[in-house]
Amino acid sequence: MLRGHDDSVVSAVFSPNGSRIVTASDDKTARIWDAATAKEIAMLRGHDGYVRSAVFGPDRSRIVTASDDKTARIWAAETATEIAMLRGHEKVLWSAAFSPDGTRIVTASGDKTARIWDAATATEVAVLHRHSDSVVSAAFSPDGTRIVTASWDKTARIWDVATGKEITVLRGGEGRFGVRRV
Amino acid sequence: MLRGHDDSVVSAVFSPNGSRIVTASDDKTARIWDAATAKEIAMLRGHDGYVRSAVFGPDRSRIVTASDDKTARIWAAETATEIAMLRGHEKVLWSAAFSPDGTRIVTASGDKTARIWDAATATEVAVLHRHSDSVVSAAFSPDGTRIVTASWDKTARIWDVATGKEITVLRGGEGRFGVRRV
Repeated sequence: MLRGHDDSVVSAVFSPNGSRIVTASDDKTARIWDAATAKEIAMLRGHDGYVRSAVFGPDRSRIVTASDDKTARIWAAETATEIAMLRGHEKVLWSAAFSPDGTRIVTASGDKTARIWDAATATEVAVLHRHSDSVVSAAFSPDGTRIVTASWDKTARIWDVATGKEITVLRGGEGRFGVRRV
Repeated sequence: MLRGHDDSVVSAVFSPNGSRIVTASDDKTARIWDAATAKEIAMLRGHDGYVRSAVFGPDRSRIVTASDDKTARIWAAETATEIAMLRGHEKVLWSAAFSPDGTRIVTASGDKTARIWDAATATEVAVLHRHSDSVVSAAFSPDGTRIVTASWDKTARIWDVATGKEITVLRGGEGRFGVRRV
């Protein structure tokens, strides 16, 4: 039944070529819309909790959603079918995003970890587990080699995508102005 | 004093060339970090409320932040100085983003509006005021001609950037499968 979201819409973004929009909602669905006609093209149904984010991959053929149901899911944008479920997180997911080349996905979770997934096989590649509180965002670097995570633990951390290892933690120290740490 | 965030970090993103990271925090600041050395380069101080988002513009010389203090602010990334305050929203801001060409900024607010600003003059260009509840996200189309907003009013809406007028509302109806509206 395509009759629009039944609860708050929390995110809306265009596809890379601007022809589609994907929305994420507290009604447990994401929806694909034709950006020119505003017609609802498809409903992405399967999550058993709020959908916190929904974004297209770089080639616009796939969408990844992140949900309160502890999973992320990959969808075929054309057919609106679920391709894979990314299962492993132990608490809610706050976000999910494709790497710039579309081969990896990073998810951020209330379980204090971010995770890297192989977008083709839907297998977990690495668990990024140094944060001591909820990881609320995770983003790839433009070249896809690094990830930066933001956490309620007051730090951000940079990770190496190839190894899954933490490169560094952003928690201050001497900066340009040479102020001593107190 | 550059010694890292004093409260939850809620967002962290790379600059377009990957050399910098900007973080947003509940400690009322955003901070710029060197992505290679992890040094804190500068603190963006001035907001009088949680900073909900902080992102670079397309040319990486500017950053725009959105805050609970009802303002967005534009900062010079190199000098970490506040260039302009975007004042007009009547409630908290959830997000702010540059247009792809860097000439416009869109903000999303709990006052049920999104607003378009001239990024050079910091003047309000248009108030997008059709939503009946909080606007929690606003994003430009890849070509910069349209904006899509997401709202707790269960709809997403598409707006024309040039005129500030609503093009359409995404709330369902007959889609590909021809299901009648109930």
